[in-house]
Amino acid sequence: MTTAQHNAEPTDTTLRDDPVFVRHKGGKLAVAATVSLASREDLSIAYTPGVARVCEAIAADPPMALDYTWVGHTVAVVTDGSAVLGLGNIGARAALPVMEGKAVLFKQFAGLDAVPICLDTQDTDEIVAAVTAIAPSFGGINLEDIAAPRCFEIERRLVETLPIPVFHDDQHGTAIVVLAALRNAARLTGRDLGSLRVVVCGAGAAGVAVTKMLIAGGVDSAELVVCDSRGVIHSGRGDLNGSKSELAAMTNAAGRTGSIADALAGADVLIGVSNGHIDEEAVARMAPDSIIFALANPTPEVDPAVAARYAAVVATGRSDYPNQINNVLAFPGVFRGALDARAKRITEKMKVAAAEAIAGVVADDLRADQIVPSALDTRVAPAVAAAVAAAANE
Amino acid sequence: MTTAQHNAEPTDTTLRDDPVFVRHKGGKLAVAATVSLASREDLSIAYTPGVARVCEAIAADPPMALDYTWVGHTVAVVTDGSAVLGLGNIGARAALPVMEGKAVLFKQFAGLDAVPICLDTQDTDEIVAAVTAIAPSFGGINLEDIAAPRCFEIERRLVETLPIPVFHDDQHGTAIVVLAALRNAARLTGRDLGSLRVVVCGAGAAGVAVTKMLIAGGVDSAELVVCDSRGVIHSGRGDLNGSKSELAAMTNAAGRTGSIADALAGADVLIGVSNGHIDEEAVARMAPDSIIFALANPTPEVDPAVAARYAAVVATGRSDYPNQINNVLAFPGVFRGALDARAKRITEKMKVAAAEAIAGVVADDLRADQIVPSALDTRVAPAVAAAVAAAANE
Repeated sequence: MTTAQHNAEPTDTTLRDDPVFVRHKGGKLAVAATVSLASREDLSIAYTPGVARVCEAIAADPPMALDYTWVGHTVAVVTDGSAVLGLGNIGARAALPVMEGKAVLFKQFAGLDAVPICLDTQDTDEIVAAVTAIAPSFGGINLEDIAAPRCFEIERRLVETLPIPVFHDDQHGTAIVVLAALRNAARLTGRDLGSLRVVVCGAGAAGVAVTKMLIAGGVDSAELVVCDSRGVIHSGRGDLNGSKSELAAMTNAAGRTGSIADALAGADVLIGVSNGHIDEEAVARMAPDSIIFALANPTPEVDPAVAARYAAVVATGRSDYPNQINNVLAFPGVFRGALDARAKRITEKMKVAAAEAIAGVVADDLRADQIVPSALDTRVAPAVAAAVAAAANE
Repeated sequence: MTTAQHNAEPTDTTLRDDPVFVRHKGGKLAVAATVSLASREDLSIAYTPGVARVCEAIAADPPMALDYTWVGHTVAVVTDGSAVLGLGNIGARAALPVMEGKAVLFKQFAGLDAVPICLDTQDTDEIVAAVTAIAPSFGGINLEDIAAPRCFEIERRLVETLPIPVFHDDQHGTAIVVLAALRNAARLTGRDLGSLRVVVCGAGAAGVAVTKMLIAGGVDSAELVVCDSRGVIHSGRGDLNGSKSELAAMTNAAGRTGSIADALAGADVLIGVSNGHIDEEAVARMAPDSIIFALANPTPEVDPAVAARYAAVVATGRSDYPNQINNVLAFPGVFRGALDARAKRITEKMKVAAAEAIAGVVADDLRADQIVPSALDTRVAPAVAAAVAAAANE
């Protein structure tokens, strides 16, 4: 808890001329009124006494709130500030500029009205209680930058109890875009998703979600191996926590063991979501025409120049290399589609549909340096929204 | 908890042509982006990687959030849906159209960005926990339409613990405007506030707040009497709950007892905030040139035509009579002033300053049918904001 008393200008007066701080001055969002309350007639229709009839109609038939309030097009962007960008646990207030940026992206790409909700607690029960309490105010909940492993439990409990879409973007946004990219990379290199030997390096929130998404999307789980910092995850290991045990059960039926380098020997695909480093020697042992997604930011697990020596297709999380795996390709359209369809949940099927739609945008112009659309491609969100809504309505 | 699945149009198709429902279609609010993220340069400055520097600056110096996020101009309009307009306990979802209207008024009169937060709980502890959790996301908390007596405890606890302004509008907004109106009515009838014998009818949330505000504003507490449905509140009564005991202790040092009619005999001022009815016979016993504020909505405690037979000045809560006591004269400017001054609390002094500012707007053109400005008078909020900020900075 901090004081809000702060009358002085920033002590570092150079901030006044710093383009980043100048652009952030006053924040990046505003609330706009879509009706006027400037005349007595306005007031009587859009406020009291007229509004009472709308309230009574919603009290009698609660889903009417989707038609006659802004709920049907709103998303709460909720964080506890515990895992923000690469900055780590910086807390609720410091996370706000990122959440505002996210809200701008929701608006810009999907026309959705997103509100940053930065929570002054990092306790799982308190986060679940707070989000549950505010849920009637929003059409969907985008969880953001919440540390593993509590992000899993928070999402699971909210999905179970809330009647609106709940989506942890760091997991599922990344996973959807990875699946989209892998579909196109496989096509470009003349292979089926189902025939690929895939190694996922990293068993945190993104690693778990990517693994599940790839399996849902058609990758053979028996030939999919997940590694943590200690090497291949397999059911024989005695040091696995809940989510890693789950990974062990759903992957690696082939029973591989050993180091990351052992796993990579002969593998077709490396997906790095670890913030670690992978040696060139290990990458060199991959199959010919391999596919490397090194998504750690700002330093990819494999230097892109090194990766390019061995792989036919390379992707990173960075905007200054080709094939940026950027969540913004997924979340605006996913929520737009889910809200348009009035879906209560975002299912695996809807996520796979989103991945297919993202892949489809560049399908006619597939190149090794364009397996996914640009993060700024405005065709993506409408395509994703339509695909997600169609999957929801099925 | 209700389902969000609702693909059908309203079953009552006449709603499509109903002007009230047409005006509410899709709600009354939107989120607007105040920066663009449409180019790579935009993204690198206003989102990643640039945003990380703003996050780090706020993590090191949290009050910088007031400069570099939207927090400094936002208000959460929080309700539990338990006492909405005259509709009563209609719940969170049904309360939303009112809260959206409130947000429109915040924008229109004070340029503030208000977000409706309708809570899916009516438990005091859960409400306090939820508001505390979301508080870092907002510059102020406007509590709205929360039933007494829990509204008192909720406000007290939040004011104690949160470092931002917390204001229960149904109490303090009403109280501020009543004080403003009474100052002008007293002036118009040639009396001092301190010489008035005042009877407040109603000891709910508004009654308690009006009583405290009038005393803070200069009304003599010894000659101020509060009545509930059982008559005059005095320390000899054995049936008083917490807030009524508090009222007994702070008012009526003269030790009056009896019915509302007894209290009104010879009184200068009647302020009705009760939703009850007061007989003409009782009103007829008031002092000459009396002042009657009958604020129950939609049916004033004293019919305005009846009141006019005895009183020199009559005010109501209704827009179709002169002298409407409307909270909108207070809350936009109060929050604007508090946020401009970066005040941590809204003090009695700031509220008195707000009342004086509201009264001042019509001071040069005081008439029996114009003791307060029109609810639509755009001069009010800036005047209130300036007065409140000045009081906060003192």
